[in-house]
Amino acid sequence: MVKLISVTGHTSLDYLLTVEKIIGPNQSSPILKCETNFGGGAANVAAGMAKLGGAVQLISPVGDDFVSSEYEKHLSELGVDLSRLYRMENEQLSKAFVITDRFSNQSTYFYWGAAGKLSSLEPPNVDFVHMSTADCFFNAKISESAGFVSFDPGQDLVTYKKEPLQTILKNTNLLFANRHEIKMVCDISGYTFEELKNMIDVIVVTYDKEGSILYSCGNVGFDGENIKIGQRREKTEIKIPPVLVQSVDPTGAGDAYKAGFLVAFTKGYSLPVCGKIGAVTASFVVEKIGCQTNLPDWVAMEKRYKEHFLESELVLK
Amino acid sequence: MVKLISVTGHTSLDYLLTVEKIIGPNQSSPILKCETNFGGGAANVAAGMAKLGGAVQLISPVGDDFVSSEYEKHLSELGVDLSRLYRMENEQLSKAFVITDRFSNQSTYFYWGAAGKLSSLEPPNVDFVHMSTADCFFNAKISESAGFVSFDPGQDLVTYKKEPLQTILKNTNLLFANRHEIKMVCDISGYTFEELKNMIDVIVVTYDKEGSILYSCGNVGFDGENIKIGQRREKTEIKIPPVLVQSVDPTGAGDAYKAGFLVAFTKGYSLPVCGKIGAVTASFVVEKIGCQTNLPDWVAMEKRYKEHFLESELVLK
Repeated sequence: MVKLISVTGHTSLDYLLTVEKIIGPNQSSPILKCETNFGGGAANVAAGMAKLGGAVQLISPVGDDFVSSEYEKHLSELGVDLSRLYRMENEQLSKAFVITDRFSNQSTYFYWGAAGKLSSLEPPNVDFVHMSTADCFFNAKISESAGFVSFDPGQDLVTYKKEPLQTILKNTNLLFANRHEIKMVCDISGYTFEELKNMIDVIVVTYDKEGSILYSCGNVGFDGENIKIGQRREKTEIKIPPVLVQSVDPTGAGDAYKAGFLVAFTKGYSLPVCGKIGAVTASFVVEKIGCQTNLPDWVAMEKRYKEHFLESELVLK
Repeated sequence: MVKLISVTGHTSLDYLLTVEKIIGPNQSSPILKCETNFGGGAANVAAGMAKLGGAVQLISPVGDDFVSSEYEKHLSELGVDLSRLYRMENEQLSKAFVITDRFSNQSTYFYWGAAGKLSSLEPPNVDFVHMSTADCFFNAKISESAGFVSFDPGQDLVTYKKEPLQTILKNTNLLFANRHEIKMVCDISGYTFEELKNMIDVIVVTYDKEGSILYSCGNVGFDGENIKIGQRREKTEIKIPPVLVQSVDPTGAGDAYKAGFLVAFTKGYSLPVCGKIGAVTASFVVEKIGCQTNLPDWVAMEKRYKEHFLESELVLK
């Protein structure tokens, strides 16, 4: 049986504008390339999981353009369960306008759209949830009732308040953060990194092209049907090497890593193998522009895994 | 019989982003308000004409999102003839991203999209054409075969070359420009304003809230079926007062003015009345955000005309 993972957070449209020049007030510039891509952290993770064969439902607010932009069709075809979406009339999907110049400088404008209503929504009871950034109050509520909580504080961390963040962290089993975010999590929550490592079963810190480190202090795993969270034992630090490829666009790599990690985790793989499957999944996404344009299925992931790591690790005991 | 007017130029989607702050490279800012509006000079003019009861066909390149954005439905419902569009697969509509801060500063990024192919297209033979900015080579070609040429050099003037601009001006019967554009037309073409006034039957120079001036040296008019272009006679200067209303968004005012002017012209109104009908039509558009959101029909235009000008002027002799 495949474990159902609920994913909450943003479903966004990303407008990627390559311009002659990033301009100031009262100026204009031509756009050399204009692409619209499916994005948003939650939808990226859900799409990545579904493509790998995971069972996933997306719990995310969407507006009228979810249908007209064909985003619904795209996620349906991937097999994401959309029955728990918050469909809001007269609202829009969240949107990111990413303006990039010839020297790879970027200016980003972000519109919350329908996701602005998250804080006032009542979350459903779910068993296994991955919370992909977005609203801290909604996440705090859902984390209190869920059986297993995976949390990615991500780009919205700047909007987080101390109290809901503390609530989330107390309920989190698995925390994903990059080196900047982990510092900000400590700053806002008031917890030290040592305290976080004692509270949270597994902390995954990603270091871009240098790979990731898993800090595990919990006896956590999956036995095929249930998540096992056993007694605390000695702390371990596991280094996961990166899977380096010709990178075209790093956007979406982090979300793909989480998708791969979580699908592997619910299949019952050990933490080091989950990290490696995450790294392999991410390596596909950076090869093409867009967060959901080059997601691997399980077979493609396995093939590349074997090129970088031991084939025997993919055999479940 | 209503004279068919062909309108060439851009059909665009306008993204109006109201932001906290216009940002530089490697910064990000939230978007407070995000609106997508139907725009593009040619489509604005065509929509305005159709709403006033004019007969209009749009000759403009469009991409796949012309249908998915419901722009096609919108123009069809207004009664614009879309049979002469250039429908391009795997292309996008032109797009303008207009970023406005709290102090009304604006940064504009413009994407040509399908309109980038205009220069290589063979224009159809048309009788009465209004060319709304866009590509100078396409416009030069269409101006050479058309029976009557109305020309709005507009925002793309910065891309115009001397030779095609001279060709256009030699064939132009009616030129619309604001005070900045008329200077740039002279600079690029090498013609003085005096020379332009001798070459072109009617030049309409708009001065925003101060109204417009019609410079006429041609015996030009419409007798119900045909445009009459008679012998040159003495030059006249006609001042058209503005129609001032509570303005919310000036975008699209110029296009609405042209739509009103041209529909009135083909109905057989005298030049001063054409100018006033243009000013009245524009006054509606500035009352709402978007270029095509508050277009008046002929009855609404007439009603406001009578509030500002003489009712008797609307009776055709």
